[in-house]
Amino acid sequence: MTANAPPVVGNLPAGSRNAITDVPGVSVGHRTLADGACQTGVTVIRPHAGNVYTHKVPAAAVVLNGFGKSIGLVQVEELGVLETPIALTNTFGVGTVAQAQIRAAIAENPEIGRGWPTVNPLVFECNDGYLNDIQAMAVQEADYAEALAAAGAEVAQGAVGAGRGMSSFGVKGGIGTASRMAGGYTVGALVLSNFGTAESLIYAGEAVGGRLAERLAQEKGPEKGSIIMVVATDAPLDARQLRRLALRAGTGLARTGSVFGHGSGDIALAFSTAYTVPHLADMPMPAVPMVHEARLDPLFRAAADSVEQAIVHALWHAQPVTGRDGHHRAALRELLPDLSET
Amino acid sequence: MTANAPPVVGNLPAGSRNAITDVPGVSVGHRTLADGACQTGVTVIRPHAGNVYTHKVPAAAVVLNGFGKSIGLVQVEELGVLETPIALTNTFGVGTVAQAQIRAAIAENPEIGRGWPTVNPLVFECNDGYLNDIQAMAVQEADYAEALAAAGAEVAQGAVGAGRGMSSFGVKGGIGTASRMAGGYTVGALVLSNFGTAESLIYAGEAVGGRLAERLAQEKGPEKGSIIMVVATDAPLDARQLRRLALRAGTGLARTGSVFGHGSGDIALAFSTAYTVPHLADMPMPAVPMVHEARLDPLFRAAADSVEQAIVHALWHAQPVTGRDGHHRAALRELLPDLSET
Amino acid sequence: MTANAPPVVGNLPAGSRNAITDVPGVSVGHRTLADGACQTGVTVIRPHAGNVYTHKVPAAAVVLNGFGKSIGLVQVEELGVLETPIALTNTFGVGTVAQAQIRAAIAENPEIGRGWPTVNPLVFECNDGYLNDIQAMAVQEADYAEALAAAGAEVAQGAVGAGRGMSSFGVKGGIGTASRMAGGYTVGALVLSNFGTAESLIYAGEAVGGRLAERLAQEKGPEKGSIIMVVATDAPLDARQLRRLALRAGTGLARTGSVFGHGSGDIALAFSTAYTVPHLADMPMPAVPMVHEARLDPLFRAAADSVEQAIVHALWHAQPVTGRDGHHRAALRELLPDLSET
Amino acid sequence: MTANAPPVVGNLPAGSRNAITDVPGVSVGHRTLADGACQTGVTVIRPHAGNVYTHKVPAAAVVLNGFGKSIGLVQVEELGVLETPIALTNTFGVGTVAQAQIRAAIAENPEIGRGWPTVNPLVFECNDGYLNDIQAMAVQEADYAEALAAAGAEVAQGAVGAGRGMSSFGVKGGIGTASRMAGGYTVGALVLSNFGTAESLIYAGEAVGGRLAERLAQEKGPEKGSIIMVVATDAPLDARQLRRLALRAGTGLARTGSVFGHGSGDIALAFSTAYTVPHLADMPMPAVPMVHEARLDPLFRAAADSVEQAIVHALWHAQPVTGRDGHHRAALRELLPDLSET
Repeated sequence: MTANAPPVVGNLPAGSRNAITDVPGVSVGHRTLADGACQTGVTVIRPHAGNVYTHKVPAAAVVLNGFGKSIGLVQVEELGVLETPIALTNTFGVGTVAQAQIRAAIAENPEIGRGWPTVNPLVFECNDGYLNDIQAMAVQEADYAEALAAAGAEVAQGAVGAGRGMSSFGVKGGIGTASRMAGGYTVGALVLSNFGTAESLIYAGEAVGGRLAERLAQEKGPEKGSIIMVVATDAPLDARQLRRLALRAGTGLARTGSVFGHGSGDIALAFSTAYTVPHLADMPMPAVPMVHEARLDPLFRAAADSVEQAIVHALWHAQPVTGRDGHHRAALRELLPDLSET
Repeated sequence: MTANAPPVVGNLPAGSRNAITDVPGVSVGHRTLADGACQTGVTVIRPHAGNVYTHKVPAAAVVLNGFGKSIGLVQVEELGVLETPIALTNTFGVGTVAQAQIRAAIAENPEIGRGWPTVNPLVFECNDGYLNDIQAMAVQEADYAEALAAAGAEVAQGAVGAGRGMSSFGVKGGIGTASRMAGGYTVGALVLSNFGTAESLIYAGEAVGGRLAERLAQEKGPEKGSIIMVVATDAPLDARQLRRLALRAGTGLARTGSVFGHGSGDIALAFSTAYTVPHLADMPMPAVPMVHEARLDPLFRAAADSVEQAIVHALWHAQPVTGRDGHHRAALRELLPDLSET
Repeated sequence: MTANAPPVVGNLPAGSRNAITDVPGVSVGHRTLADGACQTGVTVIRPHAGNVYTHKVPAAAVVLNGFGKSIGLVQVEELGVLETPIALTNTFGVGTVAQAQIRAAIAENPEIGRGWPTVNPLVFECNDGYLNDIQAMAVQEADYAEALAAAGAEVAQGAVGAGRGMSSFGVKGGIGTASRMAGGYTVGALVLSNFGTAESLIYAGEAVGGRLAERLAQEKGPEKGSIIMVVATDAPLDARQLRRLALRAGTGLARTGSVFGHGSGDIALAFSTAYTVPHLADMPMPAVPMVHEARLDPLFRAAADSVEQAIVHALWHAQPVTGRDGHHRAALRELLPDLSET
Repeated sequence: MTANAPPVVGNLPAGSRNAITDVPGVSVGHRTLADGACQTGVTVIRPHAGNVYTHKVPAAAVVLNGFGKSIGLVQVEELGVLETPIALTNTFGVGTVAQAQIRAAIAENPEIGRGWPTVNPLVFECNDGYLNDIQAMAVQEADYAEALAAAGAEVAQGAVGAGRGMSSFGVKGGIGTASRMAGGYTVGALVLSNFGTAESLIYAGEAVGGRLAERLAQEKGPEKGSIIMVVATDAPLDARQLRRLALRAGTGLARTGSVFGHGSGDIALAFSTAYTVPHLADMPMPAVPMVHEARLDPLFRAAADSVEQAIVHALWHAQPVTGRDGHHRAALRELLPDLSET
């Protein structure tokens, strides 16, 4: 008997959608490409509904394992802000989506690269080459625009958007999201889940990897793929604190059985919606008291639990997909239908 | 019924001692101070039996949460080597033990600070102030020398050495060690375990924190304390690779329920015994092929499992201790005698 | 009277070409786009003549000021190797050149993204938007291929390749290169110079900024632009040591008057040609003794001097350029014809 | 003819004292030990006159070259604050001074290590072993207390405090300080100068190293020693911005001829006096608008110029010292009496 709902991680309450969009102002859009050997897409997270270039968003990232090809982290680390929406796609789509982000930023801010500085695109990726013909480089600039235009509060999960061709633990992975309320704030996470060997899977605290590996009868391979973990919060945190928060995504990841495998690009980024930083130096800087350091623990746990829950959601929602050369990924619930609801 | 042996983490085989000293050449010594309000000590890990200053040991560290007061990491990060044994003690003993390390290094190498450069002491700490009168600053330079002299292959665990006054998950913590064999190499870990709230404990995969918190009837407090995780291996790794290995200690830690709490100084250091780096520039540099990056995954898992197992061992071996102002920490096995042996 | 040769930095001897290509195996190619408002290009540095994906090159980078939009540094930092040639272009060409690098790598290694992992493109940039219509995004994938095909030992300097539209100190900047011999090894540098305010210029030790600013009669503006500094050496260094070497590029940069301005993306990357790291795990790893740490100082000075000299060369060789909207950058030697030859 | 005043670096105005104490609230104290072979001491910088533990000071550090043995940077990096005064001493005095800092903090805040967490000592060092019998470990805990008690607005320079036994460029170094006004704020620097080979010296823009080396007739040796650079400002900057400011100390250092030599522990720390961070979570957090990023350049230049000027001051003020085994360091002005005043 298949459980009717995914198991629940931890004991913190979730937000009303149990999604990153429980953080007010955050929206998510997908563009899914699914046609034969082409199984890929783009997912966009908008941190707020306004102009992200003129109203920059405090942010920080942690590279847990840098076997990854993202663009944009150098500037995020230096300046502690985002200035575009966050884009997710496949590894060979990064350059194209970055170009699309630049064009979208210029369209909204024609002074970019003229009187104003340039813009920092921010694109993360995982390698969906098992299901998707990644060499075809199918993602086009227009796909970013479509994902951006589709952004809303409801977040489709599983084999959608950038998650279309992704695999985790030998089964179908992809997009997952979740949220937790803690310390008077909301923390939400969205993951692009493409990591993990079957035998290592701990599913909401249950070590089911051995059984899963048996069903798959697969040889033990290296931990390939990657995971991108985006954490949002409405707590007022500065970039240093957001870096601390981002690192805790790694604890949620570890609890699913990951050891941050050599070949896995495991990256976490956290941003706050509590204030924005103006592009122009003659606009007033925010005068917002940050959360006291000694009050961060509930947020840390919320980030860890949201990420672990988002991974569980990605697995639970993912439908089976057949892609290039007949490669197939089953859904976890097909293979282990008795997984407890917890 | 109390289990006769601690539960086993993962499915990799342990070394013969299931201790960091399964890595050939590594030895460990304790100096325990236990008298009324004084419940503290010093633990020393010798990476090899020779002169560590003239034959430096490749090493790297990762600060998971820098609420900590260690000394020595700046130079380890720059140069990628240790040049003294590794010392563990309480937070207010660091300066004294560092002075003792300097004196010991000079005694062995009289040119230090004369014709030769100075020496980089390396001391880690946790705060044992709940059981120990830490303000008394009881640790003396001689205690380092005693711990060093006591170093051997058998490693006492629990409330010994630097672990004497440490607490974890609301019960008695302290020293734990373990090892795993993987990829043709041995990986060993030793932890100074002083972290964790009762309700968060996952004990070898079993979420027992709720029950433990009930028994303790304690209020939910912040994650205090800290954990120091030292990982040794005989695999030939360079400093960059050792940094990768050290980070994986954090995945083992996360699996016990930690989210790297704000107030917890969580630091991991990894070293290799496969080769040494000569102090003098006219001695030949090692010409050792490193492990290929794609072969690191078994070592990563071995590090994660060794650390998680070492934490389990610290809890399993720790005897109850009563210290300053009548403060008491029970043993985990007293409170939850039915814990499965796994 | 104009000097017949650029002034000389420091007292270390230069290699025969006084160029990064004095490091055996290194070659450089340019593709220049110069037509009206389009004043930009691509420059490629090949670390060796072979397949850089299967025979990876040890490397490390330092971000002195991360107001920059490069791609590829996350993986270089994690793995300590390059696996493509190094590309330089304008800020809005990064995505396109990255796509071109991916295609070139697949053409050479058809297993990429199939049985093998993906490939990490490595593209650096500066903003040439004063002279170049950067919004036109003129750089095409074919331009990378042309620059790569043009790679050789002779390196054109000044307003060529990626340097075509770049400015420094209020005058024309662009590509510069130099080399130094020290400690028995060769160190070479190539810069993409697009930084500096006129009044701050120190030209080979001579503080000429005041005079230059007068001639330009320009208002004092913020330090815009950026500089990319690539350092090559035939000394056997590991990634940790190469990071140390890369940082010293910053000392050469500082001696020209830069304080790593807020808006300047100042990045240094160093690589070694002394050995390669095989892609396949079943090929033998290099067994090369690294340079002893105490012998690095001559290499550090060679890196600093090569970078400072390369900046001087970029200024000395740069011809005046008129670009978009009639914007014009004079050559330094036009404005200050009496600059000493040193 | 000897110049009557040290040459001036750059064209920004200095504060009234041309010292770090031009930043309101900052004070400096020395304890000098000068007796035969004992030529050493302690210098303390108080960031404000109050309780630094309960009113923590925003701060960040940059390790330019980590051949150094400081204590305290791990926590500064994580939490972005100081919680003790900053102490400088010789390499083998770090542990002792750290113990003294702990005792002083407990005396002022008896809850430390009881109901409150522990305290993070912050001690930097250079190796004065040429002039000082460093193996004697002469610095005592009381010396820290004396330096702290002596703190005031007037800062003695040269061979005083921690600078007593330090050397730079083959001549006498030690303590130097300076300040600059820029962007509406004050930036001050204090250095413990113990770095540099004679032949590399650039003295306020003048390359006098060749002449100096001739006078010293010394063999060219490696760049030993170290430099600690402390930068203070009254500009409201957060820890991320202070890290950016601290890095610019390195550009001032580079302009004196340093390439951050292998054996030189070159560390910069910056702090802001514009606000404090409360120890207790129930006290209000500061609601201070930070300086807009685009307005940092004047502060960056002020930091660079202050540090370069402070090094010049250290050399200019240092009197000759004879120490252990008859080792002697001359004053720069003795050897090159014609040095221009600029």
